[in-house]
Amino acid sequence: MQQDIAVIGIGLSRWGELWEQSLRDIFVESALHAIKDSGVDHIDSMYVGSMSPGLFNNQEHLAALLADYLGVGSIPSTRVESACASGGLAMKMACLDIMSGTSEIVLAGGVEKMTDVDTDGATLALASAADYAYEVYQGVTFPGLYAMIARMHMDKYGTTEQQLAEVAVKNHLHGSMNSMAQFPQKINVDAVLNSVVIADPLHILDCSPITDGAAAVILCSAEKARQLKLHPQIRISGLGHATDTMALHSREDITALSAVEKAGITALKMSGKKIDDIDLFEVHDCFTIAEICILEALGLFPKGKGGNAAASGKTRFDGPMPVNTSGGLKAKGHPVGATGIAQIVEIVTQLREQAGERQVKNARVGLTQNMGGSGGSCLVHILEAV
Amino acid sequence: MQQDIAVIGIGLSRWGELWEQSLRDIFVESALHAIKDSGVDHIDSMYVGSMSPGLFNNQEHLAALLADYLGVGSIPSTRVESACASGGLAMKMACLDIMSGTSEIVLAGGVEKMTDVDTDGATLALASAADYAYEVYQGVTFPGLYAMIARMHMDKYGTTEQQLAEVAVKNHLHGSMNSMAQFPQKINVDAVLNSVVIADPLHILDCSPITDGAAAVILCSAEKARQLKLHPQIRISGLGHATDTMALHSREDITALSAVEKAGITALKMSGKKIDDIDLFEVHDCFTIAEICILEALGLFPKGKGGNAAASGKTRFDGPMPVNTSGGLKAKGHPVGATGIAQIVEIVTQLREQAGERQVKNARVGLTQNMGGSGGSCLVHILEAV
Repeated sequence: MQQDIAVIGIGLSRWGELWEQSLRDIFVESALHAIKDSGVDHIDSMYVGSMSPGLFNNQEHLAALLADYLGVGSIPSTRVESACASGGLAMKMACLDIMSGTSEIVLAGGVEKMTDVDTDGATLALASAADYAYEVYQGVTFPGLYAMIARMHMDKYGTTEQQLAEVAVKNHLHGSMNSMAQFPQKINVDAVLNSVVIADPLHILDCSPITDGAAAVILCSAEKARQLKLHPQIRISGLGHATDTMALHSREDITALSAVEKAGITALKMSGKKIDDIDLFEVHDCFTIAEICILEALGLFPKGKGGNAAASGKTRFDGPMPVNTSGGLKAKGHPVGATGIAQIVEIVTQLREQAGERQVKNARVGLTQNMGGSGGSCLVHILEAV
Repeated sequence: MQQDIAVIGIGLSRWGELWEQSLRDIFVESALHAIKDSGVDHIDSMYVGSMSPGLFNNQEHLAALLADYLGVGSIPSTRVESACASGGLAMKMACLDIMSGTSEIVLAGGVEKMTDVDTDGATLALASAADYAYEVYQGVTFPGLYAMIARMHMDKYGTTEQQLAEVAVKNHLHGSMNSMAQFPQKINVDAVLNSVVIADPLHILDCSPITDGAAAVILCSAEKARQLKLHPQIRISGLGHATDTMALHSREDITALSAVEKAGITALKMSGKKIDDIDLFEVHDCFTIAEICILEALGLFPKGKGGNAAASGKTRFDGPMPVNTSGGLKAKGHPVGATGIAQIVEIVTQLREQAGERQVKNARVGLTQNMGGSGGSCLVHILEAV
């Protein structure tokens, strides 16, 4: 990157069904944790990723509201939205703000309070990330869209329901070692295969949950970070952002996530790294099939060969290419706007060697991949301990 | 500014009640006009301001959708939201993108399709720009909030309903000379005072309308603009962004718009200008009282003295400090997410001396002021012909 950016603070709110807390409460909780962790005495600006506080909470104008409740007064505060990639997008825009020379210390956060509406309301709010006129209006929502991708992957490459289930089993194993996870219980393949079918071939345990939660990080220029004398310094060395067609029917191959591929290539090139140089990954496993397609799009596995990734143990926290050590969206939870920032929080935790039981050995370089809709947008960040 | 940015293309869709066109249609219409006007053969990234496509159209993930329908494929595309200041915020983020060195040619657009819901639906969608928990839940919507501001201004400073009406009369005079205006008819003070009261003391003709519409501009670095050999070159020389408390009840003086004041000071300082150096203004007259408070906050009139601005003729297109030569939100229309970009379009049109009947003489420096909610956020830009 033209100018390295450092991550100097991280924070999470509690995640789960938070009946006693509001949208603003949980955001402020995560932001205060991040500010305290960083030790800074002010921030120059802030960015908030949130997918649909309008449909979930009747509350737009979110960035100004959250700056007000965080008590940071009159600073510039910007909300960005790219469906479930809103958090990753907040991260990118915070980086651009620092790179442009406009701000020195910036908060990038994400939040979604999803339980203020009932399950039907949440399903429809989430569906607004698909093409409303051509997909949702016809009756399909996200489990249906990802089921089509899964069915195609199974037909083309021989991927099995057992292999999908192994992704959930692995991510719940990781979640069982993360005290912040919404669903920290271990599960096995039979539990997934015997759980209710949501959209054939996807069972409910192939799907990430509905979650209330927030995450925040504090960023600054590398020069500023050097003054703070933090060890280790965590730098963002690569950043990729790409889009794809909104609707699945416009794509030549619905199992190929071209926005993921492009964002990954851009981020790797910027950081001067190859995919094999990455020690651990947090990727967007909104459904088990998504993790498989993403690992193929990033180039970790050849096209069609991702099905066996989890089953082989390669992507376990103690395997050669750990994926979703946090528990992923599946077990940690998926408050959509917060997810992209929470991925950064996990990688920083690992690079600081503070991940406890799930610590990846010799973790020096991590990659986050955050995706909107059925792959219509994607953000990739590469972080390094220096 | 660290690096000057040039505006090299402008475009508007039709504005009004566009029953035959969808959200994506009107955005693409404005974007194609802007691209054609600029003569560029590609864009590197795009930013879209939209307040609530979720509540108005069940469609989030807007930036990816619009990049898809514009046919610009896989480029980074970002939606930003700051209520009615979403367009101004898209402008800012496009500038930061260029200043950071990430992109060379960027599209900044804004769009709102407000007539897909009924009037109650639109009122509630707009109310999501206020503090839902503390304001909207108690029954107040925006006409009520601005009515409180107007009543306070009248009580404190002797401002009259006639003076409010004069703002509407002046902006409709300007709108009558703008073929793109939604309500281009001239009106008089009696018409305003005899129109139905919406929230005392505001009559319906004190209020901006509900509008479908989109606007887009093409930006590039000043160096790139020099290569294109455009005359005159329009540069963005100042940019200010500030926030205030979300709810009116948290403010010491509800007639003082502190985010406007702060954003104005920042932008003027950046451009090396004083307020008297500005030749014309496009400001956020969502209600007539807003224009009065904004001109005071920007320092064009002393506190409490803005009431007479329109009545005196000073802010007419042929007066010493022309305000809202486009017709403003009042007559031109107010598709909320598009407004901040449309203000830029008007200033560029004037600086190019292409404004026809409503042309301001010797216009060299213009200022736009775009506001979210009841002043919870504000963006100010200063443009110069060089």
